[in-house]
Amino acid sequence: MEQTNNYIDSNKDKFLQELIELLKIPSISADPMYAQNLLDCADAIAKNLVESGIENVEVLETKGYPVVYGEKIIDNSLPTILIYGHYDVQPPDPINLWESDPFEPTIKNTEIHPDGALFARGSADDKGQFFMHVKAVEAMINTNSLYCNVKFLIEGEEEVGSENLEDFLIEHKDKLKNDIILISDTSVLSMENPTLTTGLRGLSYLEVEVEGANRDLHSGLYGGAVPNPINILCDMIASLHDKNENVTVKDFYDKVSAITSEELKEMQKLPFDLEEYKNAIGLNDITGERGYSTLERTTIRPSLDVNGIWGGYMGEGAKTVIPSKAYAKISMRLVPNQNPNEITKLFSEHFKSIAPASIKVNVKAFHGGKPYVLPCTDKGYISAKKAMEKTFEKEVLPLRGGGSIPIVSTFEEILGTKSVLMGFGLDSDALHSPNEHFGLKNFYLGIKTIPYFFKYYSESN
Amino acid sequence: MEQTNNYIDSNKDKFLQELIELLKIPSISADPMYAQNLLDCADAIAKNLVESGIENVEVLETKGYPVVYGEKIIDNSLPTILIYGHYDVQPPDPINLWESDPFEPTIKNTEIHPDGALFARGSADDKGQFFMHVKAVEAMINTNSLYCNVKFLIEGEEEVGSENLEDFLIEHKDKLKNDIILISDTSVLSMENPTLTTGLRGLSYLEVEVEGANRDLHSGLYGGAVPNPINILCDMIASLHDKNENVTVKDFYDKVSAITSEELKEMQKLPFDLEEYKNAIGLNDITGERGYSTLERTTIRPSLDVNGIWGGYMGEGAKTVIPSKAYAKISMRLVPNQNPNEITKLFSEHFKSIAPASIKVNVKAFHGGKPYVLPCTDKGYISAKKAMEKTFEKEVLPLRGGGSIPIVSTFEEILGTKSVLMGFGLDSDALHSPNEHFGLKNFYLGIKTIPYFFKYYSESN
Repeated sequence: MEQTNNYIDSNKDKFLQELIELLKIPSISADPMYAQNLLDCADAIAKNLVESGIENVEVLETKGYPVVYGEKIIDNSLPTILIYGHYDVQPPDPINLWESDPFEPTIKNTEIHPDGALFARGSADDKGQFFMHVKAVEAMINTNSLYCNVKFLIEGEEEVGSENLEDFLIEHKDKLKNDIILISDTSVLSMENPTLTTGLRGLSYLEVEVEGANRDLHSGLYGGAVPNPINILCDMIASLHDKNENVTVKDFYDKVSAITSEELKEMQKLPFDLEEYKNAIGLNDITGERGYSTLERTTIRPSLDVNGIWGGYMGEGAKTVIPSKAYAKISMRLVPNQNPNEITKLFSEHFKSIAPASIKVNVKAFHGGKPYVLPCTDKGYISAKKAMEKTFEKEVLPLRGGGSIPIVSTFEEILGTKSVLMGFGLDSDALHSPNEHFGLKNFYLGIKTIPYFFKYYSESN
Repeated sequence: MEQTNNYIDSNKDKFLQELIELLKIPSISADPMYAQNLLDCADAIAKNLVESGIENVEVLETKGYPVVYGEKIIDNSLPTILIYGHYDVQPPDPINLWESDPFEPTIKNTEIHPDGALFARGSADDKGQFFMHVKAVEAMINTNSLYCNVKFLIEGEEEVGSENLEDFLIEHKDKLKNDIILISDTSVLSMENPTLTTGLRGLSYLEVEVEGANRDLHSGLYGGAVPNPINILCDMIASLHDKNENVTVKDFYDKVSAITSEELKEMQKLPFDLEEYKNAIGLNDITGERGYSTLERTTIRPSLDVNGIWGGYMGEGAKTVIPSKAYAKISMRLVPNQNPNEITKLFSEHFKSIAPASIKVNVKAFHGGKPYVLPCTDKGYISAKKAMEKTFEKEVLPLRGGGSIPIVSTFEEILGTKSVLMGFGLDSDALHSPNEHFGLKNFYLGIKTIPYFFKYYSESN
């Protein structure tokens, strides 16, 4: 392992320069104008994989942007790690808020990153993070210390919902066979409090339409005597939480499985300053489900939020209309073992059941995502914890994420293996925002941590 | 009176032709492109007033479009009637739904108007209606039977809020001195059930803004632990009505004055078919304040409606945002003696008082309008009722209007006199909509009714 570390130390500048070249490619999957850039980016990654000593490198077609695949199989008796990452990036908008060109990577020191951070779209999400694995594997190959077989799956549509990845997984199931999936697309709580993401919430997302009269009515002529769809939609939404902020959708909590007391005890070791939390988002007071802490409310408990609402007159000034229709987008974050399809069905039935007789209700369901959990007893979790504790030199604690990465559940369903979410970014790295950046220290620490994961995971098998 | 009736009968075609010429002018006050047409229209009306025998005709400047003034003072000891009307019209949009050109008046028979109706923008609202007065006065002058002094005030900004009329009234207060104001800018319930509008509801209109965090938040990372401004706005709006559909704004009903039992008894004689009412607007069921009929709810009772709501993501598909802000436009219809400024203040205070500590509330008030009522004991009301009963040959009943004509209260405040709302249109005449029309029978009946009003009003003084 000393040799591997030495290789990494002597190649720091080369690794950084190679990452900078990848970051210069505007691989924005949401905008068809950049289609050629995505193809170029896939080719550039394939070339880098080959140069790094990875074999059987291919740019594989999907119904959308291609997947870059590569592998290094050293011994069929050793475990196989599948590295997942994505080379596509979010649009840089609003472009005017960037202090440097999003596709001209720039190194600057910040308060949180006194050793420098690389500013560019995709630096942390996810080019900078998946590239740590490529370089770590290069270091292991070059120092003859690869402890596991390794496969790479780097996709180009994560930022637009990975719509074609499920079909790809089914088609290439054998090729992608693995013992554990390793992903760096999340963050640690802080460098002082490194964490591993042990769970993700699922998602159920719907749009509701409430219809009253068959046309917009004059509020002078009809006001007081007819159902107003906006008022009724507000009544219905208000009734979706009770006074304890529990979700009132019938049977909503039935399948919620409690977190183990061990994991909860570990989570509770994490520092949390409520005043700091409120100040960061400008709130005087917070609300949430009674009986749970803020950290629990955003990680191990399901929630319901209105994400959008509209109806009637939204322009300047005054218009005295009672609209025919009003709309809302409503989503629920789910925890193990809530099933998004079941929850969507429960919500639809409940929402229709609470509608007054005077109005019609339509409910449209969008694609959801399943919750995910990696038990703290999993060999992958234990190996990642040990690897990070080796390089961070701190205790590493489990932390459930509040958001959703639906592909992780899909991996488990199709490939049958668990994913370890070992991210090295920080929440302050401005992912999806202007001035996205990735600390150089985080980048190098990540490259050094990964070989330890390979070593410990191999030893645990 | 026989001579006057004969004059009207022999000049029917001339009157219609003159109205058609006025309707050809696209005097759309909302669109500055038509500014010259409004000036031309004012000049054409002034010319017609002169030709009709009306004296001291002037086109008087305002800060906006001019007012056409004229008078015929026959005897200072006789009462003076001020005729109010407006020569501006609504835009014809959506133009593609018109079956004939909105500014090429066309006569067609309809089910409700078997004797023909004149289709044109402004035919009923209000060129066709104020022109009845010009022609009735012409008939009275030419037959030497004018029973009262008469003044005309025809404005050009009614469809854009009569913003400059208050200043005009103050400036010309002496010139406009009168005993009663007569307005034909409303409708009758039907030709079989003629009605006089004895009241109008007032209006209080506000926009509310509810603010949570200082920026949009990711619903995965924060959902369940922070106040969602949309959910909270819905809670607050839902609480504005109690289970009996009473408005819960503190002291809201304090100044509501009850209708007299005589007027209520008269109103209740009007036919009302609830099934027909519901079918016309496509509703299975209706709601409203407990203990009141639909007719009462829309006329003599105040109401509160949300006219618009918006916040968060309103586009296609799903976005998992907890927005920083949510908005609503909320209006209240007021009845005598509720004061719009007082109600606006009560609402603002109430709305802020019900906000949870976690959010900030801003309330912006728009210009409101006072409610108006004409007692059934007023000489103007009695004269109009008698006049209409003479020509319609039916009992004429009082009907409160649910909408607002703020200028009527302004007249009372500045000029000190009551307005009689003696309209001859029908609600089915498509005012403000494509294919606006005015029945020829209604037009001629109006012209014949007006001299009786002059006669009875003169006799009652």
